[in-house]
Amino acid sequence: MLKNIPPLLGPELLSTLRAMGHGDEIVIADANFPAEFLGPLVIRADGISATDIVDAILTVMPLDDFVDEAAISMAVVGDLTAEPPIFGEFKALLARHEPGQGFSTIERFAFYDRARKAAAVIQTGEARLYGNIILKKGVIRPASA
Amino acid sequence: MLKNIPPLLGPELLSTLRAMGHGDEIVIADANFPAEFLGPLVIRADGISATDIVDAILTVMPLDDFVDEAAISMAVVGDLTAEPPIFGEFKALLARHEPGQGFSTIERFAFYDRARKAAAVIQTGEARLYGNIILKKGVIRPASA
Amino acid sequence: MLKNIPPLLGPELLSTLRAMGHGDEIVIADANFPAEFLGPLVIRADGISATDIVDAILTVMPLDDFVDEAAISMAVVGDLTAEPPIFGEFKALLARHEPGQGFSTIERFAFYDRARKAAAVIQTGEARLYGNIILKKGVIRPASA
Amino acid sequence: MLKNIPPLLGPELLSTLRAMGHGDEIVIADANFPAEFLGPLVIRADGISATDIVDAILTVMPLDDFVDEAAISMAVVGDLTAEPPIFGEFKALLARHEPGQGFSTIERFAFYDRARKAAAVIQTGEARLYGNIILKKGVIRPASA
Amino acid sequence: MLKNIPPLLGPELLSTLRAMGHGDEIVIADANFPAEFLGPLVIRADGISATDIVDAILTVMPLDDFVDEAAISMAVVGDLTAEPPIFGEFKALLARHEPGQGFSTIERFAFYDRARKAAAVIQTGEARLYGNIILKKGVIRPASA
Amino acid sequence: MLKNIPPLLGPELLSTLRAMGHGDEIVIADANFPAEFLGPLVIRADGISATDIVDAILTVMPLDDFVDEAAISMAVVGDLTAEPPIFGEFKALLARHEPGQGFSTIERFAFYDRARKAAAVIQTGEARLYGNIILKKGVIRPASA
Amino acid sequence: MLKNIPPLLGPELLSTLRAMGHGDEIVIADANFPAEFLGPLVIRADGISATDIVDAILTVMPLDDFVDEAAISMAVVGDLTAEPPIFGEFKALLARHEPGQGFSTIERFAFYDRARKAAAVIQTGEARLYGNIILKKGVIRPASA
Amino acid sequence: MLKNIPPLLGPELLSTLRAMGHGDEIVIADANFPAEFLGPLVIRADGISATDIVDAILTVMPLDDFVDEAAISMAVVGDLTAEPPIFGEFKALLARHEPGQGFSTIERFAFYDRARKAAAVIQTGEARLYGNIILKKGVIRPASA
Amino acid sequence: MLKNIPPLLGPELLSTLRAMGHGDEIVIADANFPAEFLGPLVIRADGISATDIVDAILTVMPLDDFVDEAAISMAVVGDLTAEPPIFGEFKALLARHEPGQGFSTIERFAFYDRARKAAAVIQTGEARLYGNIILKKGVIRPASA
Amino acid sequence: MLKNIPPLLGPELLSTLRAMGHGDEIVIADANFPAEFLGPLVIRADGISATDIVDAILTVMPLDDFVDEAAISMAVVGDLTAEPPIFGEFKALLARHEPGQGFSTIERFAFYDRARKAAAVIQTGEARLYGNIILKKGVIRPASA
Repeated sequence: MLKNIPPLLGPELLSTLRAMGHGDEIVIADANFPAEFLGPLVIRADGISATDIVDAILTVMPLDDFVDEAAISMAVVGDLTAEPPIFGEFKALLARHEPGQGFSTIERFAFYDRARKAAAVIQTGEARLYGNIILKKGVIRPASA
Repeated sequence: MLKNIPPLLGPELLSTLRAMGHGDEIVIADANFPAEFLGPLVIRADGISATDIVDAILTVMPLDDFVDEAAISMAVVGDLTAEPPIFGEFKALLARHEPGQGFSTIERFAFYDRARKAAAVIQTGEARLYGNIILKKGVIRPASA
Repeated sequence: MLKNIPPLLGPELLSTLRAMGHGDEIVIADANFPAEFLGPLVIRADGISATDIVDAILTVMPLDDFVDEAAISMAVVGDLTAEPPIFGEFKALLARHEPGQGFSTIERFAFYDRARKAAAVIQTGEARLYGNIILKKGVIRPASA
Repeated sequence: MLKNIPPLLGPELLSTLRAMGHGDEIVIADANFPAEFLGPLVIRADGISATDIVDAILTVMPLDDFVDEAAISMAVVGDLTAEPPIFGEFKALLARHEPGQGFSTIERFAFYDRARKAAAVIQTGEARLYGNIILKKGVIRPASA
Repeated sequence: MLKNIPPLLGPELLSTLRAMGHGDEIVIADANFPAEFLGPLVIRADGISATDIVDAILTVMPLDDFVDEAAISMAVVGDLTAEPPIFGEFKALLARHEPGQGFSTIERFAFYDRARKAAAVIQTGEARLYGNIILKKGVIRPASA
Repeated sequence: MLKNIPPLLGPELLSTLRAMGHGDEIVIADANFPAEFLGPLVIRADGISATDIVDAILTVMPLDDFVDEAAISMAVVGDLTAEPPIFGEFKALLARHEPGQGFSTIERFAFYDRARKAAAVIQTGEARLYGNIILKKGVIRPASA
Repeated sequence: MLKNIPPLLGPELLSTLRAMGHGDEIVIADANFPAEFLGPLVIRADGISATDIVDAILTVMPLDDFVDEAAISMAVVGDLTAEPPIFGEFKALLARHEPGQGFSTIERFAFYDRARKAAAVIQTGEARLYGNIILKKGVIRPASA
Repeated sequence: MLKNIPPLLGPELLSTLRAMGHGDEIVIADANFPAEFLGPLVIRADGISATDIVDAILTVMPLDDFVDEAAISMAVVGDLTAEPPIFGEFKALLARHEPGQGFSTIERFAFYDRARKAAAVIQTGEARLYGNIILKKGVIRPASA
Repeated sequence: MLKNIPPLLGPELLSTLRAMGHGDEIVIADANFPAEFLGPLVIRADGISATDIVDAILTVMPLDDFVDEAAISMAVVGDLTAEPPIFGEFKALLARHEPGQGFSTIERFAFYDRARKAAAVIQTGEARLYGNIILKKGVIRPASA
Repeated sequence: MLKNIPPLLGPELLSTLRAMGHGDEIVIADANFPAEFLGPLVIRADGISATDIVDAILTVMPLDDFVDEAAISMAVVGDLTAEPPIFGEFKALLARHEPGQGFSTIERFAFYDRARKAAAVIQTGEARLYGNIILKKGVIRPASA
């Protein structure tokens, strides 16, 4: 463990977040998400909820403010405008860590295609369906900028 | 060996099934199936029948109920509607483990193409021709869902 | 996820437990344990308590009844007979899953030496000091034995 | 599958047997044997009995007639002269394939040490305890010798 | 060496033949064939004639009887209907091991393209030009079929 | 870059520090130190001073308070009690980040031997001779401890 | 360190520059640049400014005089003709090391596409936005040419 | 070193030449050629002239007489018919080792594209510009052919 | 194939012989020799006699004249002074290629120990027992020496 | 190629020299030296003399002035005080690049043992016997030291 760094961020996740640059994306996926055979590096977080991981990540990683929406979830299959409770939790986390950043959804298979290009997929133990979200990394501006 | 887990599921097969997510597919292939050079990981089960492996897998893996058919065999070459005896055994296993799930067949080369995208191919010792089946993994819903 | 298998057991941990044989040992380590550079495979479980992992493992893995003690913790440095609260929790888990099996402790550096020969070390997020335990795998006897 | 070669001998086992030379040893281990972390290559044969594997191997591999005993099992812990039923089955297979070759046993930990130097360990699904045997490869003499 | 298995089949070739399935192809190439940079695994057999390797392979591997021609050589450049003596030897081996199976030829660059998809290329020491042949593996039917 | 984490800590260094446990050591070495062929992982920091790296590391990593001295430099060859100016800078950093922790030195070749067992060696661009220091990681106690 | 070679050029960067040939390109990227998942080898230079790296590289590497522009920066997003101060510093370095070579800019995503084909990306610690530049290697002519 | 084999042919180059077959090509490149990131295996020959390597290769490797030109250099940029002195030296070597074989040139980027498909690129220390040549391997006919 | 190099020397054997230096040894082993698990690289030559390989090797490799005996065979087990016919063939080859060099034998297990330190073991198809020999490489002196 | 760096220093040799630290050693070996199977990384320089490589290395690498002798050759076998001409050339190079540094010799097998611990062995094409030398790297002191 390290001082002042959320303990949920293990060595591999921490180095992935540190190595990501402007516009790179990371997927926080629920326990049923088909992560392993998708392509990107899979970082496992069995037993941890998606919301706890999002909270830990947003503590250290800025979201991209060059685009309108830097946080994207998978829409409910067959009911694209549904709002499962976990979406509300994601929004609350965004409001706390990155006020002003939008939240949006894309259809299931579009979500898979986008996830294929991500830096990594974190497979959490999130038991609730649709507990998936893509976060797009932003920049850290110089002190004087 | 582990308690309450079918002993036919060795370390590699068990971790593959555990890592698969919603919609990922696994192929149980007979002894003549061209598995090794197809692309996906090959898990060998020499000496074991295809039906015993299907039985062991369905003990722990749910099938996908987002689609109509989550169990697909290779149709007999030259007689696409033929029903070799092993198809009946596959159906009986489905009826016992996943009542309500359909069973279908696709043509030999279409089967190969689909198998190329599978998470893994288990090469069994099944001596009967056409002892092949693709199983598509489903989700496990949260207790309260 | 799989049916009837504790979800805390991810693919790599599950295959490790399955591959272990009679007498092989696995270390469940707390968040401060020096696991990474010790030698054996390290399986991370950031954010999970040592007791939750022990509970999940003992659900599927039998302990060794050829030896007197198949569960060994690290004794408190400077007070070898101390009983931190987590020892009580370990004992309760043993009593529930493996009644009759003993619990013992060994000194810190002896614990490290023994851990070097383990099949794997699970680095949990256990924040309490001395949240470490070695479990020794037993046999599964044939049904008629 | 190949013509006239026992189907239980998969690609990896077949190449291992072929590559072994005079005096090299292979371990056929039961389902509880601690194979994975012992050192040599592990070839899995989940669901297959130790005796079926021994039968298949002796169909193609000669035993070493430069030594008195080329087939060695693990003695029963605590009763070194015990004769579990599977020993009788091993002897019958030896009598059929390699008449004149002896059968012996060594103590459990001596068996582990010897297995560490083997060419490979085949982890079978043999459920009976003490279903372990080491086979030492012999030579094939030229036709005119 | 093993009993009753042609000694020309070394460990790697034996495991490749065993792993091949219905419809997989293997290339037996002469000493001038551009094998190394073609794509598939290359198994070297320096000093051995193409016909000796074909003889050894057909002793254990069935040819595919789902297709008309399961043995294909490279046609002579500039004289597609020429019949170099080695073609006659290939036909004699086919007649002996797989009576009824056809023999055909394809043009040099078509041969290369097909070889790119083979399971393996065996680079023999065959000094005669055009000593190349592709063999397509068949099935082994169950005893009662 | 990440929020609130010193930017000098790149992905590999950050994951190494995170993975280290109680008692693990890391070496911060000057530009002339023979790091590459010593054994441990080498993390390069060309152009960065040893003191800047020590400052960044101590911002996130606690030192070991189970031992008397968790910061050890290489003594000057031929003058073991010499105090080059950089030792004073190391002490000032220790006083600021880890007040109460001691600083000591060991002889050149003893330093190499100890460095061989470190988790990693950071090869900085420190141009001053004797700009080397070993830091030993401590524990992070639970909030309520 | 080596004599007469800028110490900022570590082993990996030095060998990359040496291995590059006529027309190969290297990217010097700022701290926010998405380097890690782009494709080419990433060489980290945390804590070092982009201009210091450019200065060190141009000390040993000639630019390509077969093309008009061998130094290309990323244009400011939303203001393609903007001239952030760091562009001036890049031009001054070019004027000093490679008088006569042009400097140009390309749009952000075109810059990414070009960077994907580079020999390597150096991820510096440059905190200023738009601190990115691609350098194209030239030839060294024989002494008498 | 070996008897009767040119000492310039080191282990890797010798095995590459031996493994190449009819029609495979090898590139001998000058010191400025962009070899490392082109694709094929790079064999370094720093300090050796292109002509010395060509001489050594043609001592053991036959050129392809199925095609008109088996030796192709890169044409001078901007003057496709220019004849730099090294072309004359290449022709003299061809005349000596492979009388009757033609010599031709192709444009710079066509040369790169062809080199991408070569078996290997030898990066020599040839200081003269345009010291590049592609050699295409021929066949060795049986003694009686 | 290459000009003037014995075709039995394939790419890997040729590069091994070329890479060996003064005093390095290579083992030519018969078909029963336990090569695969001994330690050194194994180069297979199934179907080729030991004497043909020795003949090909001595065509290009000098023997060591700094020692009395640079060619050592395995003595017959139980009859250390026996002279199987193949020893005579080895001696004839030595007399032809390296007149003046001695031939000796060492006991079976001493032979194995020495073979463990060899550069490589060539597993031939030599069917005759005791068809094993170790060859020790010599130097090639400069032309004027 | 790079500006002001001897072209004989290719990418791998350059990075090795740069990565070496105080006291690390590099071996420049003649063409007969048994480098490949000794242990350290082998960098080939076929066709280049040992003296040319020494000259190039000493242009960039300082020798160790903490020890009396930082340049050690292999003594002539059977005549330990002999002075082959190449020793004189080595001394002249030392006198030019590192005036004041001593030159010494050690016996053949002591030389091998020391070479086993080197950072790398450069196998040159030096045809003269005893063209071997070990160079020990020194430090570069800060400008103001």
